[in-house]
Amino acid sequence: MSIKIGIFGYGNLGRGVEYAVEANPDMELAAVFTRRDPSQVKIRLAGVPVVSAADVAQWKDKIDVMILCGGSATDLPEQTPKLAELFNVVDSFDTHANIPQHFDAVDAAAKKGGKAAIISVGWDPGMFSLARLYGNVILTEGKDYTFWGKGVSQGHSDAIRRIKGVKNAKQYTVPVESALEAVRSGSQPELTTRQKHTRECYVVLEDGADAAQVEKEIKTMPNYFADYDTTVHFISEEELLKNHGGLAHGGFVIRSGATGNNKEHKHVIEFSLKLDSNPEFTTSVLAAYARAVVRLAKHGKKGCMTVLDVPPAYLSPKTGEELRASLV
Amino acid sequence: MSIKIGIFGYGNLGRGVEYAVEANPDMELAAVFTRRDPSQVKIRLAGVPVVSAADVAQWKDKIDVMILCGGSATDLPEQTPKLAELFNVVDSFDTHANIPQHFDAVDAAAKKGGKAAIISVGWDPGMFSLARLYGNVILTEGKDYTFWGKGVSQGHSDAIRRIKGVKNAKQYTVPVESALEAVRSGSQPELTTRQKHTRECYVVLEDGADAAQVEKEIKTMPNYFADYDTTVHFISEEELLKNHGGLAHGGFVIRSGATGNNKEHKHVIEFSLKLDSNPEFTTSVLAAYARAVVRLAKHGKKGCMTVLDVPPAYLSPKTGEELRASLV
Repeated sequence: MSIKIGIFGYGNLGRGVEYAVEANPDMELAAVFTRRDPSQVKIRLAGVPVVSAADVAQWKDKIDVMILCGGSATDLPEQTPKLAELFNVVDSFDTHANIPQHFDAVDAAAKKGGKAAIISVGWDPGMFSLARLYGNVILTEGKDYTFWGKGVSQGHSDAIRRIKGVKNAKQYTVPVESALEAVRSGSQPELTTRQKHTRECYVVLEDGADAAQVEKEIKTMPNYFADYDTTVHFISEEELLKNHGGLAHGGFVIRSGATGNNKEHKHVIEFSLKLDSNPEFTTSVLAAYARAVVRLAKHGKKGCMTVLDVPPAYLSPKTGEELRASLV
Repeated sequence: MSIKIGIFGYGNLGRGVEYAVEANPDMELAAVFTRRDPSQVKIRLAGVPVVSAADVAQWKDKIDVMILCGGSATDLPEQTPKLAELFNVVDSFDTHANIPQHFDAVDAAAKKGGKAAIISVGWDPGMFSLARLYGNVILTEGKDYTFWGKGVSQGHSDAIRRIKGVKNAKQYTVPVESALEAVRSGSQPELTTRQKHTRECYVVLEDGADAAQVEKEIKTMPNYFADYDTTVHFISEEELLKNHGGLAHGGFVIRSGATGNNKEHKHVIEFSLKLDSNPEFTTSVLAAYARAVVRLAKHGKKGCMTVLDVPPAYLSPKTGEELRASLV
């Protein structure tokens, strides 16, 4: 019997889950929930109801797992605990500093409702969290490195857009190749913020704006740019839309450590991602953890988990026997 | 309270576990078991008893987990089931084709004794199995690639040594860089055996041996070398011992897949290892899974598992709270 998936929120992530459900033959999309007027929301899959978020409780027994597709800033802190009382849920909450408090809120709600939840699913947090954990437990004496990019940082793009005279902007975070090579060598370098990433900005000016002033304001902006080597390119709006509309991203988690007599043997573990679509990859991970949370709930699990708590085999539709014969 | 570790077999792997126990402050080495005369086995850590394998049953209540350090060909198929009836165990059984039957034998024994076991722990099988699983469940429509090396293949070195006129030999498996690059591009190439790896052989001849004949026998050997581009270097025994005595290894697991509208978005997940010491890395993984099996046994788990069945958080000495605050 198929796993009945609900999508809560139909933006980039919601559309990505819709594709992911199609890519997993054991899943079916039961309904899409929206805070907008449902009659105004066109989804891709035919025959799937679009329902007002206000009516979600009526679907309590018709959905095996709800995949939350809202943002981490304001949507998920409110929505995930609320829905975890009614449904098994997965979300992609990615504000690292607030994961502990989000976990506690979802845990309390899920336990109250007798449901299971997995939060912070995606690539970072998510697959990168797993890479950090496996790296740390194997090479107990070592050093962690996480590099992001090349990819668009939404927060940094927004920060540029708030500058007076800027009409539109995209900011790429780019890992420094020589820093990556130094880390891969096993030498465990100490790297400053500036040495790890550069920032590339593509900026469309308002008519009559002062380019030199905008560039100076970007490059000296504390936290966002001042600690980085930043390049600013002024381009036309057409060029921005044509060449910088993509959602590609990626990154690297590297654990470098040593073992043996006087730590004579160096080892480097590297996990990397190169993604054409950040949201579609995130939702592909969400779909796999949606399967896992349903199975864990069936086995009596209640309360909140992260990717670290989920036995990998629960992610796969294959049996343990099939996995041992084909994958181990 | 420390986890009391037993080492069963004191070769390269046993010595590696000894280092790994030192690198994990929550572990202590309780005893080393050997089939040799214990008085003839010098171990590195002072004050740890070396015990005859014949007396292992007397240690039933003094050891939390036994780490088996024998070989996959003849030792582990016999030893792991036997010991799994008495102890929680982990092993590094790596004959892929026989994992299902080894699993069943260990599972039956562990259930009989009320113990927990994790088999096939290491890097392949082990960390590479995990990389394959995570890659497959996320990018459900895609292709898997595993590359090994650069590193010494024991089986291929042995095959060369059996040729008449060969005194000693080492064989390196080397991944083809252009094949790796093609896979990383996301183009999902079909690769033949010859296109993925080359084989480099360092050979010491007996006095008076026919070099041309030996080279021909190597390069035409079915299964081992005939399907590969093979290079043969004749060197002196001194050079072999000086430059080719290491145990470095490594490899790459790459999952390439696509998502979205007409599969327009490509994604590449890569996991790679660069290891100065194959056995010391393997035993570092074994130590982490030894911790996990003890904790799983405490929570009532009985029977056999692989790395796919172990929730990652069980590998770490940190609490869930600590992990969520620092690693997720």
